Amino acid sequence: MKKIGIVDTTFARYDMGKAAINELKTNRTGFKTIRRTVPGIKDLPVACKKMFEEQNCDIILALGMPGPMPIDKQCAHEASTALIQTQLMCNKHILEVFVHEDEAKNEKELAWLTDKRAREHALNALDLLFKPENLVKNAGKGLREGFEDAGPLKS
Amino acid sequence: MKKIGIVDTTFARYDMGKAAINELKTNRTGFKTIRRTVPGIKDLPVACKKMFEEQNCDIILALGMPGPMPIDKQCAHEASTALIQTQLMCNKHILEVFVHEDEAKNEKELAWLTDKRAREHALNALDLLFKPENLVKNAGKGLREGFEDAGPLKS
Amino acid sequence: MKKIGIVDTTFARYDMGKAAINELKTNRTGFKTIRRTVPGIKDLPVACKKMFEEQNCDIILALGMPGPMPIDKQCAHEASTALIQTQLMCNKHILEVFVHEDEAKNEKELAWLTDKRAREHALNALDLLFKPENLVKNAGKGLREGFEDAGPLKS
Amino acid sequence: MKKIGIVDTTFARYDMGKAAINELKTNRTGFKTIRRTVPGIKDLPVACKKMFEEQNCDIILALGMPGPMPIDKQCAHEASTALIQTQLMCNKHILEVFVHEDEAKNEKELAWLTDKRAREHALNALDLLFKPENLVKNAGKGLREGFEDAGPLKS
Amino acid sequence: MKKIGIVDTTFARYDMGKAAINELKTNRTGFKTIRRTVPGIKDLPVACKKMFEEQNCDIILALGMPGPMPIDKQCAHEASTALIQTQLMCNKHILEVFVHEDEAKNEKELAWLTDKRAREHALNALDLLFKPENLVKNAGKGLREGFEDAGPLKS
Repeated sequence: MKKIGIVDTTFARYDMGKAAINELKTNRTGFKTIRRTVPGIKDLPVACKKMFEEQNCDIILALGMPGPMPIDKQCAHEASTALIQTQLMCNKHILEVFVHEDEAKNEKELAWLTDKRAREHALNALDLLFKPENLVKNAGKGLREGFEDAGPLKS
Repeated sequence: MKKIGIVDTTFARYDMGKAAINELKTNRTGFKTIRRTVPGIKDLPVACKKMFEEQNCDIILALGMPGPMPIDKQCAHEASTALIQTQLMCNKHILEVFVHEDEAKNEKELAWLTDKRAREHALNALDLLFKPENLVKNAGKGLREGFEDAGPLKS
Repeated sequence: MKKIGIVDTTFARYDMGKAAINELKTNRTGFKTIRRTVPGIKDLPVACKKMFEEQNCDIILALGMPGPMPIDKQCAHEASTALIQTQLMCNKHILEVFVHEDEAKNEKELAWLTDKRAREHALNALDLLFKPENLVKNAGKGLREGFEDAGPLKS
Repeated sequence: MKKIGIVDTTFARYDMGKAAINELKTNRTGFKTIRRTVPGIKDLPVACKKMFEEQNCDIILALGMPGPMPIDKQCAHEASTALIQTQLMCNKHILEVFVHEDEAKNEKELAWLTDKRAREHALNALDLLFKPENLVKNAGKGLREGFEDAGPLKS
Repeated sequence: MKKIGIVDTTFARYDMGKAAINELKTNRTGFKTIRRTVPGIKDLPVACKKMFEEQNCDIILALGMPGPMPIDKQCAHEASTALIQTQLMCNKHILEVFVHEDEAKNEKELAWLTDKRAREHALNALDLLFKPENLVKNAGKGLREGFEDAGPLKS
């Protein structure tokens, strides 16, 4: 049975892991989920690597909410770089689900955005794992996770 | 028979993979293409690595369309860095075909540019794989993919 | 018996290692601590790697105090990047405890902040090592180390 | 017999590989040169790695001409980072010879600068390979490749 | 007998390697020094790696003097990143001794600063190799190499 890892943080201001797991289980059966939580986004990469190597996960959702300051952006950059590196070391996908605190105009919208992005990336994880042909069908469609899709170019 | 991998994204607003495959097949025979699509550009590196290692591709075109915001530029930087790292891990070329949304003045021009760049890099892939001496002949010629060539310096 | 590594710097203007060790020992028994000090934050990554591989540490606290200048920010970025890479190479957590000199309004507040952040990350290290379920309980709670918690979003 | 690799790009607006090879052959005999050309500077790292591993080169000159835009600077940063990483993977020197289009005031000066820098780094390659003691003699001398030497500090 | 590697550059405007070796030999006996010089700071990482692996050095001083322009800062960042990576690959310390040309107000002060920083890091190398307990005693003391120590925070 396939295993989907879910790692989030205590730094985030929304329970992203719970939203992702809920969406996964609502849409499909026949897989297991394994959840971990770490303090901040820079702790995500090694947590993912351990979930791949020690828990045998097949794909992972890495969820975090970087703050609005320049140092937060730098942390997000460092975390992202290492999440990609982790994938290369393990030959498996990690879907990074980051919501920057300054992407929304207030706390209510930020909560909505965070929930929606976590759920839409959960669906991406299911496609990557079980239905990769769905992604090919949507190539170039201008899809976005969270806010509205940009759509294909009008030419 | 040589295998050329094509990976693009659902985030892009143009079907870049289709354009690249069309150009490849129009210009040469005697190779196979394998196509994958992932959600965004940061998912490209591990997809390429898997295509090299699990599908035995000889060269890959990695196509994406980063958005116009600072965070999009940062994502592109992270993806590019890891695409180069993937090449070093696998000893094979990946041609990165990125078109930034703010490179063109409107959607129509962006679609044209994206199509053209994908096609011109498809030709580069054929040269790297089958005719590397063509590239040596063009060393220092100021070639560009997409917009007009800069040409050699006038001195 | 589990081993917790503590590495700090002579560059920092507060004895961060001492604070961390004091907090660890106040809160729990049944583990050993091993301490090293290096000149600056860019010397931390290899010091951590050696503590994992030569001293068999299970988790490490890497403590430093970057200065306020642009070059200091760059050094912090380089050190952070490599601390994450070290974790990926060793499959073990390093908690980075950096306090930037310009985070506080005066030396007194900076000392308070540095002490508090070192201690709160010491508790994170205990949770990661002995009680990972505590972290899952706090997922999305907007926790901060040092200054006041941000708390969960009001939605 | 020692082998010197030469890799340049079709993006550059000057035939840098030709200048480098000419300088090498004018100054010394008893080595072979192997030349490759790739589309752009981000294709240089894997080309170098293949020249080390598949062609058994002992040292490589990697030549490129980044454009003047911010995205070009970022590409140069990504290429440089990976060229250093390639050296670490192979335990051999790559001399990066990059000339930024905005370093010169017009096309004529840019051509002159590019030619000169390629040639001076070709001499560095010969020293690294055959006469490393020449470099020790010039330690701290403020040497520059291309424009005039800065010279040692007056103190 | 322990071996200390010294690598500097022909780009620097001060003979940093000579200052470092002089300080090492003035303060202690019972070790060997091995010296190399490379063109610029981006050539330092692989030179260090070869000194660890081919010359069996136990610790290395990597000395350089980045210029004052943005491109020089970027080169320094790339070199620093790779020097840390080299340490992780070899499990040994490299002390980076960089003096930025714009740190001093004139050539005379720059020469003084460069000499002093090289010498103070030479002492750090001796401590790391022979007396690591000296560093623990100085944890949090706000030490600086070159200019005056910042000292511990007043709280």
